[in-house]
Amino acid sequence: MKIKKSWKHKIHEVIYGTHTPAGKLFDIVLLIIIVYSVIIVMLESIPAYDERYHKFLNLSEWVVTILFSIEYILRIVSINRPKKYIFSFFGIIDLLSTIPKYLALFLVGSQYLTAFRILRLLRVFRILKLVRFVGESNNLVRALHASRTKIFVFVFFVIIISVLLGTVMYIVEGPTHGFSSIPHSVYWTIVTLTTVGYGDISPETPLGQFIATVIMIIGYGVIAVPTGIVSAEYASGISKKTKKNPGRACPECGTEIMRVDAHYCRECGHRLNDED
Amino acid sequence: MKIKKSWKHKIHEVIYGTHTPAGKLFDIVLLIIIVYSVIIVMLESIPAYDERYHKFLNLSEWVVTILFSIEYILRIVSINRPKKYIFSFFGIIDLLSTIPKYLALFLVGSQYLTAFRILRLLRVFRILKLVRFVGESNNLVRALHASRTKIFVFVFFVIIISVLLGTVMYIVEGPTHGFSSIPHSVYWTIVTLTTVGYGDISPETPLGQFIATVIMIIGYGVIAVPTGIVSAEYASGISKKTKKNPGRACPECGTEIMRVDAHYCRECGHRLNDED
Amino acid sequence: MKIKKSWKHKIHEVIYGTHTPAGKLFDIVLLIIIVYSVIIVMLESIPAYDERYHKFLNLSEWVVTILFSIEYILRIVSINRPKKYIFSFFGIIDLLSTIPKYLALFLVGSQYLTAFRILRLLRVFRILKLVRFVGESNNLVRALHASRTKIFVFVFFVIIISVLLGTVMYIVEGPTHGFSSIPHSVYWTIVTLTTVGYGDISPETPLGQFIATVIMIIGYGVIAVPTGIVSAEYASGISKKTKKNPGRACPECGTEIMRVDAHYCRECGHRLNDED
Amino acid sequence: MKIKKSWKHKIHEVIYGTHTPAGKLFDIVLLIIIVYSVIIVMLESIPAYDERYHKFLNLSEWVVTILFSIEYILRIVSINRPKKYIFSFFGIIDLLSTIPKYLALFLVGSQYLTAFRILRLLRVFRILKLVRFVGESNNLVRALHASRTKIFVFVFFVIIISVLLGTVMYIVEGPTHGFSSIPHSVYWTIVTLTTVGYGDISPETPLGQFIATVIMIIGYGVIAVPTGIVSAEYASGISKKTKKNPGRACPECGTEIMRVDAHYCRECGHRLNDED
Repeated sequence: MKIKKSWKHKIHEVIYGTHTPAGKLFDIVLLIIIVYSVIIVMLESIPAYDERYHKFLNLSEWVVTILFSIEYILRIVSINRPKKYIFSFFGIIDLLSTIPKYLALFLVGSQYLTAFRILRLLRVFRILKLVRFVGESNNLVRALHASRTKIFVFVFFVIIISVLLGTVMYIVEGPTHGFSSIPHSVYWTIVTLTTVGYGDISPETPLGQFIATVIMIIGYGVIAVPTGIVSAEYASGISKKTKKNPGRACPECGTEIMRVDAHYCRECGHRLNDED
Repeated sequence: MKIKKSWKHKIHEVIYGTHTPAGKLFDIVLLIIIVYSVIIVMLESIPAYDERYHKFLNLSEWVVTILFSIEYILRIVSINRPKKYIFSFFGIIDLLSTIPKYLALFLVGSQYLTAFRILRLLRVFRILKLVRFVGESNNLVRALHASRTKIFVFVFFVIIISVLLGTVMYIVEGPTHGFSSIPHSVYWTIVTLTTVGYGDISPETPLGQFIATVIMIIGYGVIAVPTGIVSAEYASGISKKTKKNPGRACPECGTEIMRVDAHYCRECGHRLNDED
Repeated sequence: MKIKKSWKHKIHEVIYGTHTPAGKLFDIVLLIIIVYSVIIVMLESIPAYDERYHKFLNLSEWVVTILFSIEYILRIVSINRPKKYIFSFFGIIDLLSTIPKYLALFLVGSQYLTAFRILRLLRVFRILKLVRFVGESNNLVRALHASRTKIFVFVFFVIIISVLLGTVMYIVEGPTHGFSSIPHSVYWTIVTLTTVGYGDISPETPLGQFIATVIMIIGYGVIAVPTGIVSAEYASGISKKTKKNPGRACPECGTEIMRVDAHYCRECGHRLNDED
Repeated sequence: MKIKKSWKHKIHEVIYGTHTPAGKLFDIVLLIIIVYSVIIVMLESIPAYDERYHKFLNLSEWVVTILFSIEYILRIVSINRPKKYIFSFFGIIDLLSTIPKYLALFLVGSQYLTAFRILRLLRVFRILKLVRFVGESNNLVRALHASRTKIFVFVFFVIIISVLLGTVMYIVEGPTHGFSSIPHSVYWTIVTLTTVGYGDISPETPLGQFIATVIMIIGYGVIAVPTGIVSAEYASGISKKTKKNPGRACPECGTEIMRVDAHYCRECGHRLNDED
C-alpha cells in the first residue's frame, strides 16, 4: 500500500507538480505536444495538405490521442479526489480532447468529427497552468475581473446603441444598399462601431454616410471607456500593491511605514526592527 | 379612498419599485418581454422569416403591444404626478412604443410603419432602470459626464481635421478615383481617421496614398487623446474613492479624516489617536 | 484724434474682444458664417447641387467673401500693431480665405480655384478663438505638447517598422498579389498596422498572411504606447493640479495643507485662517 | 605611433561620438544618406521609375554602397575592440547593408538581390543612435520592457482566442464562404479581433455574423488591456519621478526623503526641520 501511495505520489508530482525538474519537463513536453496536435488539426483542414499527407497526419493524431488518453488515466489514478478532477474545467477538456478520435472509429461522419475536433484545441488552455506561474496572467485576470461589471455595462450600452443605430440605418439605406434586414444592419453597425469596417456593406446614401460617420466618431470616442476603466483598475492595482507591500506600522506611534527599507519611523523617530 | 390609495400604492410598488420581490420580478419579466419584442421586430425585418411566420410574429407583436399599453395605463394611474411621468423621457418612450401598432390599423403603409417600429427598440432603454442599480453605470456616466467638454473639444478637432484633409484628398484624388465630392472625401477621411477603413473608396495615386498614411498615423496617435482623458478622469475618480477608504472620522466633530497620517482633525483641531 | 482712437477701440473690442456682448455676438455670427461658407464649398463640389443651384452658391460665396474682406480690413485698421496680425497664423488664413475668389475674376481655371478654395475651410480654425475659452482645449493642447517628443519617437518607430515590414511583404507577396512596389507595400503595412485595413490589397500567400497577423498583433499591442503616454501625461497633469490647488502650508509647522476646507493643521493642530 | 593613435582617436570621435560638432555633423549626414538610399531602393521597386531612371538609381546606389563600405572600414579601424563592433547588432547590419550590391557583380539574380536589399533598410536603425539621445525613447523602451511579460501573456491569450474562434468560424462558415481552412479562419479572426477588417473574407451566415460581432466586441473590449498595462506602467514610472521631485535629503546621512511630511530620517532617525 505504502509503495503504491509513494508510486501514486511520484506520478502526481510529475503530472500536477511543476517544482520538480521532472514536473517541469512533463509540462513543457505536454505544451509542445499540444501545440503540435493543434498544428496537425490545422494542416488537416487544408485540402492540399490533407490529400498529400493524410496518412501521416492521421497517424500522428492517433499517437497524440493515445498519449493524451494515457495521461488522462494517470491523472485520475494519481489524484486523491478523482471526481473533483474529472468534473473540473480541465478534466472535462482533457476527456473531450481524446473522445472524438475514438468516436470516429464507430460512427463515420467527418462533418461532425471536425466539429468535435475544435475541442482538441482547448488543450491549449492547459498551457495556462504554466502561464499561471508567470504571475502576470493573474494580474491580468485580476484587472479584468475587477472591471468585469463595468465592461459588462459597457458592452450592454454598445449593444443597445448598435441595435438602435442598426435599425436607423436599415430604414435609411434599406435592402437596396445591402442593409437587407435589421440584424444585418446591426451587424454592420457593430462592424463600424468597433472600427473593424469590413466594407462588405457600406452606406451609399449621403444621409447613411453621415450617420455612419457619427457612428464612427462615437466608436472612436467611446473606445476610450473600457480602456480608461482597465487602465484605472490596473493602475490602482499597482498603487495598492506598492502601498500594501510593506504593510508595516511603527510600534510606537502606529504610523504606516511606506518604505520597505525604512529604519526609523518618519513620525516619531522610533527605531524600527525588521520584525515590525 | 384609503383602499384605492393602498391599491395604487401596491401597483406603484410593483411597477416603479425594485425592492419588493414582486417589483424585482416585474422588472425582470418586463426586461424579457422587451428583448423578446425587439427580437420579433428584427425577425420581421428578415423577408424569409416574415413570409413563413408572419401570422405568429404579428400576433406576438399584438400581445406585446397590448401588454405594454396596460402597463402604460397602470403607470399613469399608480403614480401621484402623472403629468411628470407622461412628459418624462421614459414616459414618452413608453407611449411611442405602443402607438405605431395601433396606427397600423387605420392607415396602411408598411414603409412608414417600420420607421415607427424603430422606436419600439427604445424600450430596451427601460433596462437601464435595472442597470442603474448595478451602480457601475453611474460610475461610467460620471466619468463620461466629467470629460464631456474634453470629448466635445476632441470631436470638434477631429471634425476640423477631417474637413481639411477631406478637401485635400478631393483635390488630390478627384472624382475619377471615387472621391466624387468634398463631403464624400470627408466621409472617407473620417472612415480612415477612425481606423474603420471600409475600402469602398481608397486612394490610388501615390500622393493620395501618402496623405492617407499620414491621416492613419494621425488617427493612430490621436486615438490616444480621448482614452487618456477618460482614463485620467476615471483614475482620479477611483483615487478619490480609495483616499476616502481609510474611513476614519473625528470622534469630536465626526469629520471624515482623509489622511492616514493626520494627527489632528482639520475641522475642530481635536487630537486624533490611532484608535480613531 | 481722440475720437478716432475710441472708434478704433470700439471695433477692436467687438472684433477681437469676447467679453462684451457685442464681441460675443460678433464671434458667434462669424462662427455661423464660416460654417455656412464651408457648407457652400462642399455643396459646390457635388455636381448635382452645383448644376442646379450654381447661381445661388456662387452669389452666397461672393457675399461671404466680401464680408470676410471687410472684416479683414477692419482687423488691420482696429489693431495697434497691424504687422503682427497680418503675419500671424490667423492673419494669413484670413487673407488667404478671401483672395481666391477675387483671383477667379482675372484668371479662369476652376481646377486651380478649387485648390485655393480649401484654404477657405481654414476659417473654421477661427472657431478655436471661442473654443480657447472653453479652457479644456488648452488642457488637451498642453497634454499633447507635453508628450510631443514621445509621440514623435513613437511615430518614428512606427515608420521604421512599416518600411521594414513593407519591404518584407513586397518580397513575400510581390506584384502579382497587388504589392506592386515597396512604397505601395509600406502603404499597406501602415494601413494594417494602424488597424485601418481597407482591403484594397490583402495578402494571399500563407506566409504573407502570417506576417500580416504578426503586423496586426504588433499594431494591436503597440497602439497601447501613445495612449499610455498621453494618459500618463494627462493624469500627471490632473494630479499636479489637484496637488497644487490648495498650496497652503501651516504657518506653525509648515505642513502642506492638502484640503481646501481644512481649518486646523493635521500635524500640529494649529488653527488655520483662510489667509494661510 | 602616438600620432596614429590620436588619428584613430579623431576618427573615433567623429564616427562614434556625437558631442563634438564634427561628430554631430557626421551622424546627421549619415542619417540623410540612409534615408536617401532607402528612397532609392523604394523608387527602384517601382517599375515606371526603374525603367526611366535605372542608370541614375543604380549609380547612386553604388555611391552610397561605397560610402558605407568606407565608413564600415573606418569604424573597424578606429575602434579599440574591432571584434566587439563587428559582431554587434549594428556591426552586422553595417556589413549586410554593403555586401548585396557587391554580390550582384558576380552572381546575377535580381530576385535574390531584392531580397538582400531589404537589409539595406535596416540602416535606418542607425538613426536610433541619434534618437537614443532624445532620451524619450529610453523612457518608451523602459515602459515597454517593464510590461513585456504582461504583453507576452496578453498576446498569448489573443493567439489562443484566435485559434479557438477561428476554428469555430471554419466550422460555421466553411470553405464555401471563403473560410477555406482553419489557418485561414484564424487569420480572419485576428484580422477581426485587431479591428483591422480587410473584408477580403467576411461571414455570410447569420450565425457566422453573430460570432463575428462577438469577436469584434471582445476585440473592442480587450484592446483595453495592453493599453491599461502600458498606461499604468508608464504612469507609475512618471509618478516615481514626481515623487522624488521634492528632493529633500537628510542632512545627517544624506538619505533622500521621499515623504513630504516626514519628520525623521528613515535611515538615521535624525529630526528633520522643514528647511531640510
